[in-house]
This record gives sequence, structure tokens and C-alpha cells, in this order.
Amino acid sequence: MITLSSDFGSPYPAAMKGVICRVTDARIEDIAHDFPRQDVRAAAFWLTQTLPYFPPAVHCVVVDPGVGTDRDALVVRAGEHALVGPDNGVLLPVARELADDETDGADDVEVFTWAYDDPASTTFHGRDVFAPAAAAVHDTGVDTVETRPETAPTDDYADLRFPDPAVESDGATGEVLVVDDFGNAVTNIPGEVLADRFGGTIEVDGRDAPVRRAYAAVDRGQQLVTIGSHGNVELAVNRGRGDEAFGVDVEASVTLSL
Amino acid sequence: MITLSSDFGSPYPAAMKGVICRVTDARIEDIAHDFPRQDVRAAAFWLTQTLPYFPPAVHCVVVDPGVGTDRDALVVRAGEHALVGPDNGVLLPVARELADDETDGADDVEVFTWAYDDPASTTFHGRDVFAPAAAAVHDTGVDTVETRPETAPTDDYADLRFPDPAVESDGATGEVLVVDDFGNAVTNIPGEVLADRFGGTIEVDGRDAPVRRAYAAVDRGQQLVTIGSHGNVELAVNRGRGDEAFGVDVEASVTLSL
Amino acid sequence: MITLSSDFGSPYPAAMKGVICRVTDARIEDIAHDFPRQDVRAAAFWLTQTLPYFPPAVHCVVVDPGVGTDRDALVVRAGEHALVGPDNGVLLPVARELADDETDGADDVEVFTWAYDDPASTTFHGRDVFAPAAAAVHDTGVDTVETRPETAPTDDYADLRFPDPAVESDGATGEVLVVDDFGNAVTNIPGEVLADRFGGTIEVDGRDAPVRRAYAAVDRGQQLVTIGSHGNVELAVNRGRGDEAFGVDVEASVTLSL
Repeated sequence: MITLSSDFGSPYPAAMKGVICRVTDARIEDIAHDFPRQDVRAAAFWLTQTLPYFPPAVHCVVVDPGVGTDRDALVVRAGEHALVGPDNGVLLPVARELADDETDGADDVEVFTWAYDDPASTTFHGRDVFAPAAAAVHDTGVDTVETRPETAPTDDYADLRFPDPAVESDGATGEVLVVDDFGNAVTNIPGEVLADRFGGTIEVDGRDAPVRRAYAAVDRGQQLVTIGSHGNVELAVNRGRGDEAFGVDVEASVTLSL
Repeated sequence: MITLSSDFGSPYPAAMKGVICRVTDARIEDIAHDFPRQDVRAAAFWLTQTLPYFPPAVHCVVVDPGVGTDRDALVVRAGEHALVGPDNGVLLPVARELADDETDGADDVEVFTWAYDDPASTTFHGRDVFAPAAAAVHDTGVDTVETRPETAPTDDYADLRFPDPAVESDGATGEVLVVDDFGNAVTNIPGEVLADRFGGTIEVDGRDAPVRRAYAAVDRGQQLVTIGSHGNVELAVNRGRGDEAFGVDVEASVTLSL
Repeated sequence: MITLSSDFGSPYPAAMKGVICRVTDARIEDIAHDFPRQDVRAAAFWLTQTLPYFPPAVHCVVVDPGVGTDRDALVVRAGEHALVGPDNGVLLPVARELADDETDGADDVEVFTWAYDDPASTTFHGRDVFAPAAAAVHDTGVDTVETRPETAPTDDYADLRFPDPAVESDGATGEVLVVDDFGNAVTNIPGEVLADRFGGTIEVDGRDAPVRRAYAAVDRGQQLVTIGSHGNVELAVNRGRGDEAFGVDVEASVTLSL
């Protein structure tokens, strides 16, 4: 199986699918093609929320503001999965999770550069570099990707780590990592800080908000603080947009006071 | 085959696909993931317009404003199809249509609760409850879903019926069920009321509008009344938005005078 | 394989998929369902950018402002591919490219009308005419499509050609064919006119702009002129919208002065 993720919108991903279908009959599943445009950190976050649910696969990821510059193309092996994409850090957080899933952690993330000839375009390496690479890696097999002539092991690559929250006994400070399509503001603060608060309230940036397990546990249009499906603290509104109600956007600082 | 329908936007449905792919190689087809958010009736309507065209399949439907509350998860058998989703009525209208297609009607809709352990999240039962249930039902087979330990027959479930229009000899009054992506306002008034009117006009909320079979039968930007692909009266504009031109939105009352 | 392209948005394409799945187990891949609404030329352009990357397939294309009028349904054979869609020109540009790919050019584009009985709807021929036709053509095989009773060869069909740019020794004048999801304005001016300009500037509608191979070769928010993945001159902004920065939209005239 090959999965596709990008910020391409439509219809560019279709050309990538065609390129892959010419090489292999592998099943193709779309993760998303509407990742926030050229936002490497947001894409890296969403990949951690989706790819670990898949069986072993080759994951082709193209969020690539540096397309056409001299940044490398990478193949990352993580457990029984392979990731193919640009060398800008987008592949690394999910690679660590995929490796953790399978074995004993980040030691099992192996990074390779993928050598490519001058591609047909300088603006669409999804079609001209990454889709062919993903099809080739799938064809060869994740286990033996190092036998491909295009690959060379490297430890000189861009990494990306999500910012660490500051968690204290009397509260926590973090930031908004992404806002999802519902308007839920997903922070980097671990959900555990809410542990004893369900049914009560917590102070968010100085104002009290109810802590609940379900959106529908508050009235329509009311704010709540919950643990999202990612395990982090999420600022939400029942049937509304948490980002607007809490006045936050991506990278906004969020302080919870217990 | 497993189909997926939700109001999740992107990229949450990808996690559902991954969960399913870990259990079964079944083909997955997306119906839509942009149903009007948390609008159970709209989703129920669109399911009646799409699922009956499919061969027998397991249809996983997650429009679920009550996620994380104590509402049940349901499996509904309808003819050779099964539907999996929350107990809020969203599955029932299409279940009746799927059963009608196959045999002799609503008697053949069988509803089961689906017992689930505490899921990993309280906010994403699509991933943690309904996708696993759909994969399990597919694996077991629609015919023998009652043999699954998680299922129990029930007749205590939320139903949903579309509002009945009032059709008289001199006109009809109904309401707008949904507005589609083109801006066509789909009413609950049966298309038959237009039978003898094609080529002429009809009074909509007091103003005359042409009755035509094709959008392009009026000039660009002009209003028309037609029978949509659902068989109902539709308020439209050739290459424009009918909802705006007729000044209607979902749940707006519509009166046709013959 | 059957591919689907339309301007239907969601969820109408799902009904088309269901119709096809009832006839054949063929793999279905979506090209796009958000082509600019009822814009036959834009759809024709995007098809040339996507379908030629696919292996032999049946391509079902429904951008059809004339639905329900007496316009014909067509099946077009181009090399080992077949295209199915309305007789409004949308199929022809890509058909010529698909034929070129395979053999010796436009001579190998064969156009057939596809006879259909009164369909179930006058507004959704994607579901009621074109999806069944695509499934039937796939079932019969592209090679023998003329043996289907519904087909009749024709040379009386709507064609569509993209406007020719005026390329002179001291510059070129063309127009914007489409604006992509990134905001890149794709012109009909061949990229070759930029050949010696990379690293320098060019005058676009009287104002100088840098000519670069990569978006990231200029600062964030800065304009550039590049060769897009289609091979044509593209007006862009690094991490921004070229259409807004250059003040152009579809069909806008663009003059480059060398």
C-alpha cells in the first residue's frame, strides 16, 4: 500500500497517482491533500495522527516549500513502514512514532537520501521525484530499500520536533499546534493535566472554562476544554469553533491554571 | 466493500481508513466527508441519494454530535447491506430504502446495538468505535452480524423521517432539505407536482419562475424550477446558485402555487 | 481502471462510483471533482495535466453545463485510453495528447456518439448516462468499443483548442488558462520564452519580475515568473498567490517583454 499526503489541493495529486499506477498495482490511499499550505510543522503533526493507524506501507509526503532548490529527497525507514518526502523535517516526528509502534524506538529510524536526475519540472517534485520514488521503494520492498542504487544512508538531515509544553504542579503553558476542520484548537499540552478536572473548570488564559469529555456535555455554542483524539488538551466549542471562541490560532500561547 | 461517510473534513477520515486496513483488505470507497457539520438530517438525506447505488456493502457513517455521551453505537441490516453509526437517526432513512431495494420494505430493517469498551478517545469514535465495528461486520458478513458478541437486537433507537410536504390540487408546501454544492435548493416536494408544467411557469413563494427539465433551458443566471436527480422539486439557477436567487436556505418553507 | 473527473463537488460523485461498482470490479481513481464549475476549458486543461500520467484507462469526465439538453454523449478512443463525457469539447485536448503519447498523433483520436435511453434524471447524467457508459466501455474493452450497440462513429462534435499565444523575438502575449489552488496563474505562453532569463528578470505587463526555477528562490511573499509543471509560463508568489500579486485571473491577457 502507498499513501499520499500533500498540501496540493486539487488536481495535482491525480498526476502523482497516475505516475504510481504506471509502476505498480499497489493500493493507493489518500491521507489528505489539504494540509495547511507549506506548513511543515502542521503536516508533521497530522501525519502522527494518521499514519500510525495504517498497516505497513510506503507513505509519500509532499509538503515542500523548497521544491526546486537543492534540498534533498529522503526515504526514511521506520519499523515496517517507509516514508518518502523532502528533507525539511516533515517525515521525522511520525517516523519516530512508527518505529516506536513496531520495536523499541527512535533507534530504528533510518534515513536515506534519494538521488534523482534532473526532473521534468522544478515546481512539481511530487509528480516527478517523490511519486516515482515511492513506487520504486514499494516495488523493491521496505526491507531492502538500501539496495536501491538511489539510496545512501545519511545522518545529515533536517529534523523537526514539536515544542515542549511547560507543565507545573499549578498549571501548564503550551501552544496551539493546529486548528482542525471543526475549529478545535489542538495544543501541545498533554491531556493528563486535565485528569482530575473533568466535570469542573479550568482557567484558560485567565478565564474559566468547563472541562468535559464530550463536546455535547456543554450547551450548543458553549466553550469547553477536553482531551482530543491525539491525547492533547483541546480548546473547543460544542457545534462551534474553539479557535474563535478562545481567540487563538496556530502558534498562539495557551496557559492553563489549575 | 466498506464505504465511509462523515462530516469530518480532513484528515481525520484517514485514521479510520488505516484502522480498517489493519483488519481487512476490503475495498474502501469514500461517499463524502464534508456533510454539513453535525447536521444529522442533511447526512441522512445525502445517504439516501448515494448508498442505494452501491452493490451490497458495509456503510460506516459518522455524523455524531453526541460523540462521547452515552448514545449507543448501532449496526443496521438492510437487505444485503449493513450500516454502522451512532444512534441518532442518521442511518434509518437510507436503511429503509436499501431494504426496499432488495425485498419488501421496512420490515427488513433490523437494528442492533453494538457494544464497545471504553474507546481510546471520547471525541473520535469514528476511529475508535465505528471503523473497527465496520471492519468487524465486514469480516463476519452482513448475513451473520447477529452472531457477533457485540450485537444485540433492539427496537429502542432514534429514528428520523424527513418532513412530509403538503400537496394539494392547487399547489404544494414543503421545505428545503439541503442545498447542494451547486447552490441548488432541494425540497421535499415530489417532482410529480411539476408534471404538466414543463415549458411553463409556476409560482414559488408568490413569484413566477420557469419550469424546465435542464438548467441550460434558461439563460445563464436565470432562475428555474426543475426535478432534481433525487426526484424532488429543486430551485435552481442556470450556472448560478438557486438558494441565493430564491432567498432560501435549509429548513426554509417553500410554497408552489399551480 | 476507471478515472472520474467532474465539477460536482460532493457527494454526487459517490453515486457515480456506486453505479460503476455494480457493473465492474475495476479500480476507480478520482482525478478531481472540484474543477471550476461549468468551466469546460479549465477542465480540458486540467485533464491534459493529469490523465496522460495514467496507464491505459477509461476516463469518465463530467463537466456538463448542457446536461438535460440534446447535446450528445461521446466516447473518444485515444491510443489505449477511452474518454467518456459530454459533447462540449472537454474531451478533445487530452485525447490528442493521449493519442500522441501512444502512437503518431491526432489521427488516432476516434470519436463515437453514445446512444442512451431516457435517463432517470435530466439533471444528473454523470450518474445516469456517463458512469454506466464508462463501466460498459471498460467491460467491453477500449479496443472494441465500436462493437457496442450504443456507439456510432462521428466527425460532427464540438472541439476545443486552447488559445494560441503570440510569441515574438522581443516578447510574448498570451492569457491565463487557469489559476491553481496555490494561486499560481498558469498561462498559455510556452516556458521556452524564459530560456535565457533564469536568474534575471522579465517585464510582465510592464513591470519587472524575477525569473526563477524555484518558488523559494525569491523571498517569501515576493513575485516570480517560472515554468510550471505543465511547461508553460506561470506567474507566482513564493508562499503566496500569484494571481493576486500580478492582478490577473482566468482569461486575463499577459504580455512578457524581453
